[in-house]
Amino acid sequence: MNKGLLIVVSAPSGCGKGTMLKEILKDNRYYYSVSDTTREPRPNEIDGIHYNFLSKEKFQSKIDQDGMLEYAEYCENYYGTPKKPVEENLNLGKHVILEIEVQGAMRVKQVRPDAKFIFIAPPSIEELERRLLKRDTETMEVIQERVSKAKIELTYSNQYDYIIVNDELKKAIKDFKSIVRACELEVR
Amino acid sequence: MNKGLLIVVSAPSGCGKGTMLKEILKDNRYYYSVSDTTREPRPNEIDGIHYNFLSKEKFQSKIDQDGMLEYAEYCENYYGTPKKPVEENLNLGKHVILEIEVQGAMRVKQVRPDAKFIFIAPPSIEELERRLLKRDTETMEVIQERVSKAKIELTYSNQYDYIIVNDELKKAIKDFKSIVRACELEVR
Repeated sequence: MNKGLLIVVSAPSGCGKGTMLKEILKDNRYYYSVSDTTREPRPNEIDGIHYNFLSKEKFQSKIDQDGMLEYAEYCENYYGTPKKPVEENLNLGKHVILEIEVQGAMRVKQVRPDAKFIFIAPPSIEELERRLLKRDTETMEVIQERVSKAKIELTYSNQYDYIIVNDELKKAIKDFKSIVRACELEVR
Repeated sequence: MNKGLLIVVSAPSGCGKGTMLKEILKDNRYYYSVSDTTREPRPNEIDGIHYNFLSKEKFQSKIDQDGMLEYAEYCENYYGTPKKPVEENLNLGKHVILEIEVQGAMRVKQVRPDAKFIFIAPPSIEELERRLLKRDTETMEVIQERVSKAKIELTYSNQYDYIIVNDELKKAIKDFKSIVRACELEVR
């Protein structure tokens, strides 16, 4: 059996990445990598689903034992991708999806340049802003912050292997599947 | 406008490449590159469709003027890919398909490593033999020759970017389209 593909997906907030991945993950040839973190779970968060919530000691010992594919410290908490479930699922022939922000993706690229890096982009910054406004769940300040962050993230998009412009959800999902199929057919 | 993709397609005889390409070329985003040759046209062959039939002098002058993307001599005749229509159609944003045998593909790779190289393979040598026998248009000797040639050609398949196993025509065409779509989405 062929090993699965390691697929790194990044997108600015508001690009529809969540909806896309939800659709794609219905196919059980995919495995979604759950990140480890040392931060406290929020009320709606479930351990093992949203994150694996670990103590700082446990996280540190995983780092020491080379158990993290990548990790970073942010606001005095650790966030990272545990190596074991990734490797196990790749060996089972599953395509492992790492949903990760651009900095994390760049760290993965250092250690796993063979991974496939997919960036999901909004049709335009204006459209992204419209979408965030439409959600109506955040303050103007938060939206402006996200838009600024998106602009920075977009400058990293050329470090990825593929860019999908999520103009229309169905088309974007089809594009994602085309990329994965092409990667399956690639001479490795 | 983005430039089109240069797509090199090779396949042993009996892999269904002809039927596949016929289907794909219905989409007018593709341009099929017609080869130049100095050999005599066969009764059913049309100039500009099957080949561009040129005199040896004309072919030689195209070589001298750097007008050939690749060429070779075979049985005292020249065969080659004219550069001009390829470049013109790429500039128009069309995907240019070069249907070419493995040696020619390797020559293209030398000068255009950015091209996408797709190898179409039979599910197995046994299946290839069955298909050639089923056609019932050739002698056993010719079939054996083709099977031997296919075995050699298959050893080149790992020099290509992608391998499509043509087990089922519809699936193979879908795979081809997935590859092209993925290449369109590639960060160039």
